[in-house]
Amino acid sequence: MKIINSIYEMQKQAEALRASKKIIGFVPTMGYLHEGHLSLVRKARELSDIVVVSIFVNPTQFGPNEDLDRYPRDFERDRKLLEQENTDIIFYPEAKDMYPEGFCTYVQVRGMEDFLCGKSRKGHFIGVAMVVIKLFNIVKPHYAVFGLKDYQQFKIIERMVKDLNMDLEVIPYPTVREKDGLALSSRNTYLSEEERKKALIIYESIKTLKEMFKKGIRDPNALKQRAKEMLESEGGVIIDYISICDTETLEELTIIKDKALYAIACFVGKTRLIDNSILEV
Amino acid sequence: MKIINSIYEMQKQAEALRASKKIIGFVPTMGYLHEGHLSLVRKARELSDIVVVSIFVNPTQFGPNEDLDRYPRDFERDRKLLEQENTDIIFYPEAKDMYPEGFCTYVQVRGMEDFLCGKSRKGHFIGVAMVVIKLFNIVKPHYAVFGLKDYQQFKIIERMVKDLNMDLEVIPYPTVREKDGLALSSRNTYLSEEERKKALIIYESIKTLKEMFKKGIRDPNALKQRAKEMLESEGGVIIDYISICDTETLEELTIIKDKALYAIACFVGKTRLIDNSILEV
Repeated sequence: MKIINSIYEMQKQAEALRASKKIIGFVPTMGYLHEGHLSLVRKARELSDIVVVSIFVNPTQFGPNEDLDRYPRDFERDRKLLEQENTDIIFYPEAKDMYPEGFCTYVQVRGMEDFLCGKSRKGHFIGVAMVVIKLFNIVKPHYAVFGLKDYQQFKIIERMVKDLNMDLEVIPYPTVREKDGLALSSRNTYLSEEERKKALIIYESIKTLKEMFKKGIRDPNALKQRAKEMLESEGGVIIDYISICDTETLEELTIIKDKALYAIACFVGKTRLIDNSILEV
Repeated sequence: MKIINSIYEMQKQAEALRASKKIIGFVPTMGYLHEGHLSLVRKARELSDIVVVSIFVNPTQFGPNEDLDRYPRDFERDRKLLEQENTDIIFYPEAKDMYPEGFCTYVQVRGMEDFLCGKSRKGHFIGVAMVVIKLFNIVKPHYAVFGLKDYQQFKIIERMVKDLNMDLEVIPYPTVREKDGLALSSRNTYLSEEERKKALIIYESIKTLKEMFKKGIRDPNALKQRAKEMLESEGGVIIDYISICDTETLEELTIIKDKALYAIACFVGKTRLIDNSILEV
């Protein structure tokens, strides 16, 4: 396994790999890897000859009052985990190289970023789109695998890749959960034992809404009302948003045809957690 | 010479060419080619194994009241000219394929697009950045050659390529002029014989400001005042802007250190013409 810090070297490697007809699979991460990330790495492994994983805590996707500084980091641990997964290359650049002085190019997927997390985290998806387009240009993957816990992120990147004719395929991968249902997230490490228990209500609300949907309940307000009641029943859980929206455009729905996305963000203590699930029969 | 309309086919060709270690030189154009374009093609020829020229009148870089509909087009003529220059591939896509339904990704080089043409043509450089990034992803060039008549366009693209780590080199090429000094432009075709004569004042003002600069005049206001007087002395020439700005950031200068860009846009009749020159000793 190679560890590459230099953008230039990574790009030259990628070019050489493509020229020798190797298929490159890519998993961009912010590190502090968990089983969710590792399942993406395995998916990339399955699709590709060469697996590249990037570790970069991207400053431009954090708001001024967000958790950039305390975001968990442990490169040595990540390195070992990736070695076990037969990763070929870790791309591990520095922020000063990724965003040199004078940087002023911004990529916006307008419309899709106005909803859900884009609404409560202003500028978040501009930062995501920016770093992803850079990483794609550096790593030159044939496949890039993204987890569906960040459903909106996946849809925005899928749209951007299509709109800008980037020559790669964006592959979605299902959310990985703990046995009790909590979606894996590097941010789970912030939770106290008590908060960890409270956080389970998120998945409980997903299960309940899926059941309601199966029983034929199609009124978005009824579904959201039930979710709200459940989340609020757990003291210390503050709802950021609850949404029943279109699975493609992410627009809030007033009528559900065949399916919908139930997406949710809430604070458990100081920790912001997200989750989502598609409601369909 | 191959003519490719399909985005998919162009991208596959480009990928195959890169894989076989061919160097790709690219000249993006809106067609209705003149000697200025052809000199860019020759430069690309000099640098590359394979020369690709795109012809695409990009709707997103025209404002609602601009000349998209009457922009001159003559594919057959362009084809012949490019054949004579030993062009390998003409990429000639359709607007409906370049901008399919649902397109919503926008690229902005903030700051640099606020000045000069970006100020009077709102949204123009968003359209330019958008189409250029798409064309780069489709044609996958090692070199892309741009004429310096559109100095701001060149600087914005240079910045964007650097900021987004696109793996190519942007090559500038000097403005090509008629014998009497008029900068070549597809829009010159709009000019009546009388307007054509009036338009010469633009290059006259460039020569004058270069002389003043050589004589030691460094006050931007004095330079701009002289340019204004010259242009206004010609009836029927309406100034859009006159700028003495930084050659890198394009910011208007109040003090000139070693050099400056003199940039100008004006209407001669209904036709908007631009020109520029670097003032230096």
